[in-house]
Order: sequence, then structure tokens, then C-alpha cells
Amino acid sequence: MESQYTNLDTIKFFLHEVHQIDQFLGKGRFSAYDSASVDMFLDSIKTLSDNELFPYIKEMDEKPSYYRDGAITIHPQFEKIFQQSKDLGLVATIFNEEDGGLQMPNALFHAAYYIMEAANNHVTGYIGLTAGTANLIATFGSQTLKDIFLPKMLDMEWTGTMCLTEPQAGSSLSDITTSATPDSDGSYKINGQKIFISSGDHQFASNIIHLVLARLDGAPEGTKGVSLFVVPKHKVQDGQLADESQVIVAGEFEKLGQRGYCTSHLVFEDAQGWLVGEENHGLMYMFQMMNEARVATGRMGAGIASAAYYASLQYARERPQGRKLTSTGDKDLAQDQTLIINHPDVKRMLLHQKAIVEGSLSLILQASQYLDAEHLAEGEEKERYNLLLELLTPVVKTYPAEKGLESVSQGLQVLGGYGFCMDFILQQYYRDIRIISIYEGTTGIQSLDLLGRKVGLKNGKVLTWFGEEIQNDIKAAYVYEGLQPFAKTLGENLHLVQQVLGQLMPIAKTGDFEQFLSDATLFMDFFGTVVIGWQWLKIATASQKALSENSEQQVLLEGKIHTMKFFYKYEMSRTKGLAQTITDELKLTLDFDLEMLD
Amino acid sequence: MESQYTNLDTIKFFLHEVHQIDQFLGKGRFSAYDSASVDMFLDSIKTLSDNELFPYIKEMDEKPSYYRDGAITIHPQFEKIFQQSKDLGLVATIFNEEDGGLQMPNALFHAAYYIMEAANNHVTGYIGLTAGTANLIATFGSQTLKDIFLPKMLDMEWTGTMCLTEPQAGSSLSDITTSATPDSDGSYKINGQKIFISSGDHQFASNIIHLVLARLDGAPEGTKGVSLFVVPKHKVQDGQLADESQVIVAGEFEKLGQRGYCTSHLVFEDAQGWLVGEENHGLMYMFQMMNEARVATGRMGAGIASAAYYASLQYARERPQGRKLTSTGDKDLAQDQTLIINHPDVKRMLLHQKAIVEGSLSLILQASQYLDAEHLAEGEEKERYNLLLELLTPVVKTYPAEKGLESVSQGLQVLGGYGFCMDFILQQYYRDIRIISIYEGTTGIQSLDLLGRKVGLKNGKVLTWFGEEIQNDIKAAYVYEGLQPFAKTLGENLHLVQQVLGQLMPIAKTGDFEQFLSDATLFMDFFGTVVIGWQWLKIATASQKALSENSEQQVLLEGKIHTMKFFYKYEMSRTKGLAQTITDELKLTLDFDLEMLD
Repeated sequence: MESQYTNLDTIKFFLHEVHQIDQFLGKGRFSAYDSASVDMFLDSIKTLSDNELFPYIKEMDEKPSYYRDGAITIHPQFEKIFQQSKDLGLVATIFNEEDGGLQMPNALFHAAYYIMEAANNHVTGYIGLTAGTANLIATFGSQTLKDIFLPKMLDMEWTGTMCLTEPQAGSSLSDITTSATPDSDGSYKINGQKIFISSGDHQFASNIIHLVLARLDGAPEGTKGVSLFVVPKHKVQDGQLADESQVIVAGEFEKLGQRGYCTSHLVFEDAQGWLVGEENHGLMYMFQMMNEARVATGRMGAGIASAAYYASLQYARERPQGRKLTSTGDKDLAQDQTLIINHPDVKRMLLHQKAIVEGSLSLILQASQYLDAEHLAEGEEKERYNLLLELLTPVVKTYPAEKGLESVSQGLQVLGGYGFCMDFILQQYYRDIRIISIYEGTTGIQSLDLLGRKVGLKNGKVLTWFGEEIQNDIKAAYVYEGLQPFAKTLGENLHLVQQVLGQLMPIAKTGDFEQFLSDATLFMDFFGTVVIGWQWLKIATASQKALSENSEQQVLLEGKIHTMKFFYKYEMSRTKGLAQTITDELKLTLDFDLEMLD
Repeated sequence: MESQYTNLDTIKFFLHEVHQIDQFLGKGRFSAYDSASVDMFLDSIKTLSDNELFPYIKEMDEKPSYYRDGAITIHPQFEKIFQQSKDLGLVATIFNEEDGGLQMPNALFHAAYYIMEAANNHVTGYIGLTAGTANLIATFGSQTLKDIFLPKMLDMEWTGTMCLTEPQAGSSLSDITTSATPDSDGSYKINGQKIFISSGDHQFASNIIHLVLARLDGAPEGTKGVSLFVVPKHKVQDGQLADESQVIVAGEFEKLGQRGYCTSHLVFEDAQGWLVGEENHGLMYMFQMMNEARVATGRMGAGIASAAYYASLQYARERPQGRKLTSTGDKDLAQDQTLIINHPDVKRMLLHQKAIVEGSLSLILQASQYLDAEHLAEGEEKERYNLLLELLTPVVKTYPAEKGLESVSQGLQVLGGYGFCMDFILQQYYRDIRIISIYEGTTGIQSLDLLGRKVGLKNGKVLTWFGEEIQNDIKAAYVYEGLQPFAKTLGENLHLVQQVLGQLMPIAKTGDFEQFLSDATLFMDFFGTVVIGWQWLKIATASQKALSENSEQQVLLEGKIHTMKFFYKYEMSRTKGLAQTITDELKLTLDFDLEMLD
């Protein structure tokens, strides 16, 4: 029914003009890339998505993955998708050439996955997790481990998972109990249970490589005693697959959404694992992957919201209903019915979605470009980009999750009663996106990370760098008179962030971290809104520049400026209220009689 | 798994103390009621809900109603539920004694249905629609129609539906085309199709009475040419059921939620219908029912949000995870794991839900009490209560829909990954509640009604009355020193409402209704928040009063005051930003090149 899920012109404009990817192309790590190869890669991803991903999104929900007799079966289309992923090098993209990789710019990699996720959000997890786990082995594993695992994983012959959560520990990794016991051959016996393991089992890889967090006997308490192990589903001996399955698939979690993407319960009983890197450094290693996965999760949220946006836009353009209001507020029956897209409230719901979807996309590209910049930079500049990415990561994870949900729900609302019907896809996106604020650390956890760790990195220096980034973009916007009021508003909001932190930080200094962090989630909402406001100003500046250079994409560019204004009118107006709440001295969520909640 | 879905003590406190139902009992229409009979009725409803409704909520979702061979089959438990509804007089509740009714106070009726909806939101529609359609016949039908239909409907032997929506017209009733042609026996031949007909067919009534909007030949254009007909599924001749089915059940809409509550597609081909009241007055009649249904829909949203709140509260009290933060922001591993209810962010999510759920309930009781007051009042006072209810109706429909969805989503979030799993009920409530902002006129339509019609009723006099109601409650709150800051905030917000309208009304006067109404949905959010702030101040005042009189319910009452403070800190702080957006002069949702949305 729906035929569009993203706009490739927007993605290319964001990459080339807003985020100026071309400044990196042809240099150092990215010497094999130029502007044309970037576009060509995106075109091929769009073709893949049009032909092999988007047509199966609804079917993957209606015929979900299922568990039977100790194994999980996923939709048959995945066979073809995995094959084409290999052909396009989708796992190999960001790896070093020496490991068989393509050294693709991170921003391009994320743009490509974003397109795929907009087309079908049930798909990319299998591929992305394989890339993430292989990358962990590439970064921290021994040459032996690399030689055994990387070639097969980069070809999607073997896929990967990350195994963190356990039934009794949830998000709290201090409390994991899976154990690792050294064996005589240098490997370890792994025992324990892991739950919520995405892509934990399926029929289209000859092996599944689990990266498992476990504790060695006598390891220090808490997260400092956690080590990382490679545990293949089928034992690997001398680089060859032994016909011995050693991971028990105990079940699948039946989910509200993303039902084509399996979520398994795994049991390890004396499974053979291989230590990655050093003992007790597991969590630090895993953080590399978790940070990547957090960006990927936010990107997935933005992709789902994009699909919902275009589905609702298409409906609004085709569905006649009601009439324009006359000067008395009544309907003029002499008129024909109008398309619902002509009702201001429907336009508002569409612009609201567009503002969230494209603002989120721009933020994802911004963050991934910091990683590209880090690759090319040296010394303090390298650290600067690394830490700017660290600062933004929880926001990249959370904004598209929380606001993306709001956006998808608006998309559903555009369809009225049909939005609630299973025949239309909006209800599916509404279910699919609900996981995004839970995966890879809930919004609450991301918010603790942002306020409790990230804004204070290097004693606040990183936040100062971040402010400089914004100030530079404010300055660039000031060149265009029409953008000045918005640049001014962004400047005021940046100041408001500083004011809010000025009130919060002294509480942290008293040592009362519970109070300091009690409204971290609201701070995330506040800070995230300012961050997206920054992205929209940046988009509008690039649009204005292109317009002044007589770009042929006039309507697209004017649409960006219009949406920027919408964001400032409808979203940036929320920040003062949030700041007021965050700095309000009445403490209501700390100690009180919990029976009052009855 | 979950065992609680509402708190009866809160409901009784709201009825007796906050809304002082006792002032009406024993008087006029309500002469048969006293304080004890109110509580007894609520107790019996709670017992019914505990035993027959709540245990089936998940099963009704998992084994939904289904269509086969021209008929819809609903869950077998409904047989018992309908029988008990008859025994308890659930349809008869608000009818006049002369029609076989119980003349129950409206506030009590809504409190009872709220309990049932919190227990199982798939159930009440069948009963409530029967009451609503029967009430329409009672109010506007001839004595003959009343004699034929009321006794069976009040006994739930026959159930009822309202048939408005048609495929080509959607929410726009000007465009319905179902036709009515006079027949020789005084009846009419009805031809046409109706969609989204709730409880349109099932196996547990010997007849289903459809109230159908249709057009007579030559009737005036638009809504002024719409008449109302009673069209029974099985023909009724001489008061007896003829064994002739005349309504074709063409299918069922498979829905995202409320899957136990069927939604049908009906076809009328020369079906025999009987005119209700006068020709071309159908929409006016139907508005009685639509207004009731709007209050009922909001109430259903509040009920679902209540169920989600208590399910998440119970989980938070049982699930250990993480530890309290130490003075360095790290976790203290020497401590045991803590229950998640001890984390401030979880407490925030719970209080947020409580504030929305109980604030919504209080508003529903407030609105329904205006109807009770109208029954007992005379002359201008009668009109005053009638119009105050009119003013509040779109808010009663919308606030629990929009904020209830937010509330349920927070409930799901409390469970983390388990919230997304089908084994837990939160995902179901998240699906169920999504229809509430669509049923009976979407949020957009309710918002047009509020800003375009209701706030201007009687040239603004109704709004002035409404302001007086709030001022009275502000005055009552000022008696208690601890409440004064909140009373002051409410007063400022009331003033802000006037300021916003002061800027909007001149636009209406220019005749540019599109611009005037373009942000009606934001005005709804703004106005609704102030309305619920009013309710919370009222709740807190009654609580403070009871505390000063040494009530035994100390914890419950302190919980109300605590939640009031929470609402003011976290929700009332949003109004200024909303007011800013609504009054911003940049018009972005009127005329612009729609291709910019691509």
C-alpha cells in the first residue's frame, strides 16, 4: 500500500551539504572514497531496500520468527538478504582494509543502515550485530581469534550476538553471575544463562558467534570483575567447524514488535569460550560495542519514524475527507471534499514528524562524523572528537527513541480509525518503535549517563567544546538575515543549558547523587531538544546557502527551512518549562512513604 | 500476574469528599440513594470486576472476536457478563424510573463503569452502547418505539449500536449517503454501508438494535438533512421478533487493540427502519449520544491507564535491580540489590502515571456531576450546568486519551524489556489505549470543538462561569497555607488562558477560521493541563480538609497532596511554553507548497 519510506535526496543533501562529508573523502583512512562513490553506494542500498527489504516488512510481522525444538526459525527472505549483504559488503564496511574491510566513512555507513531500517527495521539487527561483534574481536582479540572469526563474519556466513543481560541482573551488569573456568587447552568453560539476546539463533548462518560477559573465579566484585569471551554456537577447532552444538537455545521472547527480529534465551553449560583481550577488562571492551549499538539503536528509531512519516504522508495525500472551513467556521458544502492533507492540523502532524525524523537523522550523521573526524585527527583534536561523540551518544540513542515514538503515534493518528487497523502498516511501526527506548539501556539509564557522566567529562571541558561547536554554527547562520532570530534562540538555549547545569552541579558536589540525578530524564529531554535545535539551524543554514547558489533543489531546501521554523516554534518552546521543572527545588521523587502510591 | 487495577478507596474519596456527591443524594431524581447505597453499589461492581472481568482481560486479547460466515463471535465469557449486567441493572442505571430505570446519579454511574474499564476495557462498550442507544430512543423515540425496545435493551437481552461512519465520509457526517425511503407501513427502507461499528454483531443477544444516520430523498444538504432510524438486526413485528435477519455483517476490522471488542462493517439492503423523532433532526439527536460516548471514551482511557499504573506499580515493588547511588555516583556493591521502586526515575514514572490517572478520574466525575446538578437545578442554573458540561466534554474525551497514552507507555517503560514482551500485560494496554484518541471524534476534532465552539458559547459567558468555578476552588484551597503556592499558580494559569484567548479571538473575528483554529490541538493540551491542575488542587484541598479532621486515611490523603505537587511541578510547568507556541505569529501550517513535505 505504502510505497515510500525515506527520501534519498534529503540523505545526500545532509551528507554532502549539511555535514560536508566530502572534506574527509580521499584522505587517509577514506582515501578510496569520493563524492560519486558515496552516492553510488547509497543508490545501491536504496535498490536493495526497495527490492528485498521494504516488500517484506509487513510479512515479517505477520509471520514472525518462532521457536521450536531448540531452534529459532526466521523469515525465509533473510537467506537472500544475508547473501546480498555479503555481496554489498555490509558487514565489512567500516573494518580496516587489513582485516578485509572497506574503511567506509562512518557517516556513510550510518546513512546506508538508516535507509535499510526505514525500509525494514526487522533486518539490520542481524547484520549490524555481526559487524559489531566482529569489530570487537578485530579491536581487542588476538590474531588467532581474528583469523578464525573475521573472514566468515565479514561475509555473513557466521553471524554475531552480544550476551549481557541475565534474568536476575537486568540492566545492572555488576550482578551478572555467568561463570568462566579455565580449561587445559587455554579455553574456558562458560556456564550461565543470558536473556533478551537479539538474533541469538536462526537457520541462515553456519555458525553464530556469541560475545559473552562472564566472571572468572575470584574476580573482583562488580563490573571490574567481568571478562569477555567468544563462544561460538558450534565449536570451532583448528579454524574448522566441529559438528558440535554447545549453546542451548532455551526459548524465544514473544514481543510486541520487531517480530521478525528474534530475541532469544540462551543457556551455556560447559560451553567452550575464548577470552578476548585481558581478564576483567570485558566491560570496557563491551562498551565499544555498546556505544556503537546505542548509536545504531537511535538510528533504527529514526528509520522507523521515517517509514511511518512517509506512510502517513502518502495517506494524507490520497484520502478525501471534510471541507475547508468558511468564515463562519462552518463547512462549505458547495465545495468538494478536500484531501486531509489540506487540514492545518494534519499538516501540523506531518511537519511534526518531519521535524523529528530529519532532525534525528542529522544528529546521527553529526555523531558518526565525529568518529570519522577522530580517525583523521591527531593528538588533542583526536580526543576532542572522541569525547564529543561520547557526549552525544546517549542523546543519539534517546531522542529518536522518545520523540520517534511520538512521531510514529502522530503518523498513526493521521490515518484516524484506519491507523488502528491491522491492514495498515502504521500500527506495526507503533509497535516496532516501542522497543527503541528500552534496547541498549533504557532512557532512564541513558539519562543518568548524560547528566551523571558525560556533561562532566574532563571537568566540563567537553561540554565547553560542544558549546563551541554550536557557537560556530550560530555564527554561520547569522550570515543569513532570515535565520538570525533562530540563531539567537539557539544561543539563548545554550545559555539556558549552562544555567541549568550551574544549578545542578553544586548538588553533585555535595555528594547527593540521588538528588542530582533525580530528574536526569527531564534533563535529557531538555538537552536533546536543544541539540536537535542546533541540527535544524545547521540544516537551514546549508539550505539557505544552496538556495543562494541557485540549487535546483529549491522545494526540498525551502522545505528544510520551513521545518526548521516549525521545530523552533513547536519544540524549542518547551525548553524553558523543562528548565523550570529541572531546577525546581521541590524534591518529590526521593524519599517518601511508598504506600502513598497505592 | 497483576492483581490490582484500581483503588476503590480513592474512588470513594473522590465521590464523597472531593466532589461531594452526598449533597445530591436523597433529593429529587436521586431520592432513592444515600451514602451507603452508593458505596454498596461500588462494592458490588468491584466484586463483579474482580471475578468476571479482570481475569479475562488478557484472554480476550489473545482469543479475540472473529468474523466467519456472516457473523461475529465474541469471547464466551461475555454470556456471563451480560447476564450479570442485567442482574446489576447496568444498562438501567441512569434511565428514568418510568422507563424501568434506576435514576442513578451520573457520577456514580461513571465511577462504576470506570472500575469495570480498569478491570477489562474490552467489556463495557457492549453494555454502554446499549445504554446509550436505549437512552436515545427513550429521549426522542415515540412511545411505541420505547415500548418495543426499552424493556429488552434495559435487560441486555437486546444490545445496541450507533451507526455513523461510512467508508467515503469518515468523520465528516455531512457526506453520509446511506438512504432512507418511506415504505407504506410507516417504516423506511434503509440502504447503505456503515463501517467501524463497535459491537455491531455477536452471539449473545437475541437482537441487535442499530441506530442509523441516513438521508431521506430530497433532504437538505449536509448535516441538516440527516435523520435517525432504529434498524433492528432481526425484524420486529408487533413487538415480537420475526425470524428474519435484515442487516448484513460484511466483516470485522482486525484491530491493534481492544480485540475482544468487535468492530464491524455493516451493510443495509432495504432493511426496515423506524424514524426516531422528526425527519432531518437526526444529528441533533445523535449528539446526545455522542456527548455521552465522548465522556465514556475518556473514562475508558482513564480506566486503561489505571490498570497499567497498578500493573507497573506492582512490578516495581517486586523487581530487584541495581543499587542506590553512593556519594561518588557509583554503585555500592556492599549493598544488596534494591527494588526498582527505590530508583528516583522509577518513582517519577509512577507518580507521573498516578497524576494522570487520578486527575483524569476526577475530571470525569466533575463533568458527570454537572449533569447531576443540571437534573436538580432550575432555570438559568440548569443551563449553566448543562453548558459547563458541554465545555468540558471535549477535554474529558481528550485528556485521558492523549495523556493516558503517555501514562501507559511510562508503565510499560517501568518493566524495561519485559514491558515489550507478550507475557506481560503492559504491551496490551499500550495497544488498547491507542484507540481512545480516535474513537468518537479524533483529538483534532475534539480540539476544533473546544476552541471553535465551546470556549465561545454564549459569547464567552460559559467560559466566565467556568472561571468562577475555578476561582471558588482556589479560594477554598487558600484556607490551607501549604496549598497557597499551588492555588496561586492555578490562578496565574487561568489568567494565561484568558490572555491566550484574548490573542486568538480577534483572529476568529476576522473570519479567518483556518488560522484561528490551526493550533486548536495545542490549545487543547494547554487548556486540558489547566483543567487537570484545577482538579488536583480540588483533590488536595479535600485531602487537607480530611487530614485536619483526623481522617484515618492519612497515607492515602498525603499521597494525593504529594501527587498534586508532582502535577504542578512536572505538568503545569508546560503551560507557558504551550501558550507561547499558540500565540506565536509565525503561521506554518496554513498555505505552503505541500511538495516541501517530501
